[in-house]
Amino acid sequence: MNYFEEALKVHKEKKGKIEVVSKVNIENRDDLSVAYSPGVAEPCKEIYKNKEEVYNYTAKGNLVAVISDGTAVLGLGNIGPEAAIPVMEGKAVLLKKFGNVDAIPICLDTKDTEEIIKTVKYLAPNFGGINLEDINSPKCFEIERRLEEELDIPVFHDDQHGTAIVVTAALINALKIVNKSIESIKVVLNGPGAAGTAIIKMLLHLGVKNIIACDEYGILYKDRGVGIVDHKKELCEITNKENLVGDLSEAVKNADVFIGVSIGNALTKNMAKTMNKDSIVFAMANPIPEIMYEDAIEAGVKVMGTGRSDYPNQINNVLAFPGIFRGALDVRARNINYDMKLAAAYAIAELVSEEELKPEYIIPNVFDNRVASKVASAVAKVAIDTGVGKK
Amino acid sequence: MNYFEEALKVHKEKKGKIEVVSKVNIENRDDLSVAYSPGVAEPCKEIYKNKEEVYNYTAKGNLVAVISDGTAVLGLGNIGPEAAIPVMEGKAVLLKKFGNVDAIPICLDTKDTEEIIKTVKYLAPNFGGINLEDINSPKCFEIERRLEEELDIPVFHDDQHGTAIVVTAALINALKIVNKSIESIKVVLNGPGAAGTAIIKMLLHLGVKNIIACDEYGILYKDRGVGIVDHKKELCEITNKENLVGDLSEAVKNADVFIGVSIGNALTKNMAKTMNKDSIVFAMANPIPEIMYEDAIEAGVKVMGTGRSDYPNQINNVLAFPGIFRGALDVRARNINYDMKLAAAYAIAELVSEEELKPEYIIPNVFDNRVASKVASAVAKVAIDTGVGKK
Repeated sequence: MNYFEEALKVHKEKKGKIEVVSKVNIENRDDLSVAYSPGVAEPCKEIYKNKEEVYNYTAKGNLVAVISDGTAVLGLGNIGPEAAIPVMEGKAVLLKKFGNVDAIPICLDTKDTEEIIKTVKYLAPNFGGINLEDINSPKCFEIERRLEEELDIPVFHDDQHGTAIVVTAALINALKIVNKSIESIKVVLNGPGAAGTAIIKMLLHLGVKNIIACDEYGILYKDRGVGIVDHKKELCEITNKENLVGDLSEAVKNADVFIGVSIGNALTKNMAKTMNKDSIVFAMANPIPEIMYEDAIEAGVKVMGTGRSDYPNQINNVLAFPGIFRGALDVRARNINYDMKLAAAYAIAELVSEEELKPEYIIPNVFDNRVASKVASAVAKVAIDTGVGKK
Repeated sequence: MNYFEEALKVHKEKKGKIEVVSKVNIENRDDLSVAYSPGVAEPCKEIYKNKEEVYNYTAKGNLVAVISDGTAVLGLGNIGPEAAIPVMEGKAVLLKKFGNVDAIPICLDTKDTEEIIKTVKYLAPNFGGINLEDINSPKCFEIERRLEEELDIPVFHDDQHGTAIVVTAALINALKIVNKSIESIKVVLNGPGAAGTAIIKMLLHLGVKNIIACDEYGILYKDRGVGIVDHKKELCEITNKENLVGDLSEAVKNADVFIGVSIGNALTKNMAKTMNKDSIVFAMANPIPEIMYEDAIEAGVKVMGTGRSDYPNQINNVLAFPGIFRGALDVRARNINYDMKLAAAYAIAELVSEEELKPEYIIPNVFDNRVASKVASAVAKVAIDTGVGKK
């Protein structure tokens, strides 16, 4: 199938992918008087008396806004709010399909950090959660942090945390195969943007001790100066304890794990050969990974994952975000903390049994219908345990 | 049926009234690749090349935002955004049921005019139209005017224009019964808020020459001073040509038509008796009208309408807004002008045939399934004729 032609055809035929439907029948005057005037005044009054009742009488509790400003859409970059809508509708469709979450795309016609924050706050009464999507870095960090602080509903930037959760799940299982411990490994992350930064933080929470981050100027280290702006200042503090200096080829020497969220062909076959025995590579640049699957295997990589569906071990956010939101909404979590994200990663990893686990199968299939509910219940449990969710 | 108990029960059982569903199936990897990555990039690119394509590849063209700040909800007043949601969900449900329009409630957590305007502009890329709802007066006038000017999608404040259109439809047919001409009648409007002001302007567009507006200080006239602020300044210019002075009882003497969008029992039986022979009264205060149906008839009123479903001639916005939006969306109307609103009023009026027309039946039933499509085609035709819509 030619996905590109088919996508144009389907989107045009259906005029987009989402529809809003009624959960109540309106067939006669009684129905009208219950769903609308005068009956509707009663739920309004109940909510006015106690704002929490909005979760009982409206769609809020199951409704997520998929919010973007269209500045970092797929590999297309800053294409603006209108052109970003098909992606956000896609997200909404997946939230429904896998998590039974109602979601609506909201692509904002502003790129200003403060305006985006303010707008989302104005919109918040209607929604049980906020999924930030395809907002460029480093702005996305500030937007997420502030909204997390200032709103009482969960805010989740999927490009960051969705990716980080699935990478973490994949790493947990890959380490079982190569029989290395989380604490012992050296991880090199190439491309510390939104996803890369979140992956680094997740792996630190997981217990990884030695992480080296590389960008277009090479290894991030304290006092590098050039390119060390915004979130990269923090990354210099939390990575590269030995203050290693050099380029990517220097970084990957004796690394156990390479994680790429950067650009195609960034990791050469020769570089891969310098990694430790039983190395693990997650090369997630799309459509061309940092190293092609075949080249990685030839270079001695033991476990290889990509972002593509035509190779083994597709690192796909769809494994995480529907269950994350399902679980968070189920217990009205105020936010989605690292314990919840880690619980999601372990839940995903556990769906591959010991018998099934092999280098070509470290994470479950996207269509494994156990995934979202298992993630949801893990997330909900930890939300309650950590005091951000309600029983 | 106790609508109030039933409304609480239904809203709680269903957790609100709207749901977002997918128009595409996601059953396998091919489906995923078409609806989401990588296929979804193609419609994105088409829209990026030509913004107009957003109408072909996304849900925008059939999606309306029902926007409120919760400041003037039903008879409940300023109850805030959360408590307003059940009403906006109701509106969304009715837009779907009667107009096949997808609509989503957006209750904003700000009451500031400029912030509301800005927020709606940021949201506009996603929507084919904006329905403003339950925003208090006089702020609502400025918000609507500015959004109409600054957006390329139709903006419709239903509390104003929906009501005005249905009142106009009712008046067109009532005048046939009493055999009076539009140009000859004297109309008294009590309560020149959002709806009242829109009714006055619609009736002027209809061709009514003599309109007297009354508020809590009595008749609006030039140089009255007290209470003549904001939109009432303009009303003093366009009503009361003879500069009549006095209270409501003075105004209604020899009036042919009384229109109330004010408070219960504002029009006494004695006042109604001083109106001209074959008088028409639309008493739309809810739940208690300006004069009760029986009292009006006893006072000699020939044609009586209210906002209630338990009396004849319910003046119900549901007759107008679904068809208005259907028609406007069908031709991508840039705005909804007075010619389109008048066309809607005539379309509604024409659905009562000469044979059916009688004092107790001047407007069609809300469940007459011809209404929305007839309104839609009339609105669409006039939109094209007046150059605001596309063939």
